[in-house]
Amino acid sequence: MEHLNEIEILLVEDNPNDAELTIRALKKNNLANNIIHVTDGEEALSLIHNCLKNNVSHSLPKIILLDLKLPKVDGLEVLKELKSNDKTKVIPVIMLTSSKEERDIIESYKLGVNSYITKPVDFDQFVEAIKNFGLYWLLLNQSPII
Amino acid sequence: MEHLNEIEILLVEDNPNDAELTIRALKKNNLANNIIHVTDGEEALSLIHNCLKNNVSHSLPKIILLDLKLPKVDGLEVLKELKSNDKTKVIPVIMLTSSKEERDIIESYKLGVNSYITKPVDFDQFVEAIKNFGLYWLLLNQSPII
Repeated sequence: MEHLNEIEILLVEDNPNDAELTIRALKKNNLANNIIHVTDGEEALSLIHNCLKNNVSHSLPKIILLDLKLPKVDGLEVLKELKSNDKTKVIPVIMLTSSKEERDIIESYKLGVNSYITKPVDFDQFVEAIKNFGLYWLLLNQSPII
Repeated sequence: MEHLNEIEILLVEDNPNDAELTIRALKKNNLANNIIHVTDGEEALSLIHNCLKNNVSHSLPKIILLDLKLPKVDGLEVLKELKSNDKTKVIPVIMLTSSKEERDIIESYKLGVNSYITKPVDFDQFVEAIKNFGLYWLLLNQSPII
């Protein structure tokens, strides 16, 4: 895990292939240089808590790309915690998951997810989806300055 | 105002030029055929309330594109009401506004906005922004089936 000052994306993904593909697609399109990758929900929350504890809110990630099924603390629990705290509620959280189950989609929106995207199975489509995601959330969407 | 069964986008915009440009950019790129356009916050809420009252939840919009400064009931109030009701909370709401003020951005995220985009002043950039918005929210994002 690499810590840098201005985190563009916090990627929470336990599948190494998906993580590598995501990071490669973002870097290839010059959409994000500063990505921190953690592999479970506990580590994601611990990173956020450390930013808050040390009052280095400027180091909070600009956006969070969150898998749903994760070891230790699952994605919905991470989402719930982030959206229950006024300081972290303003960070856009985008679910990136294999689950197309309606109950996961509904539950994510009820907990306040900003967007929900499913991982395409096809390699090229996966890369294209990540590119579109990055273009939208890093270039068009306005995140608050935190 | 036109009522159709499956609303892809509810556009809440009082500026006729911005509304026309938005609708034209979406239709030109075949991103949405079924757009309902209302010009103030009261009309937007009334449309949503009618859908809920008549239990025609399938006619709730797939996404809502919401201006911030609106007559009668302003955008933040509309957002607050939509995100306080479990049935409408799951509809993605995207602010499309001229305001780049940090307090508007922060307040929108605190109230649960899904995304916040600012209107580019340049014509071509406006059309491009709407295209990117449509590609992302209508093709990549998964909205719940409601």
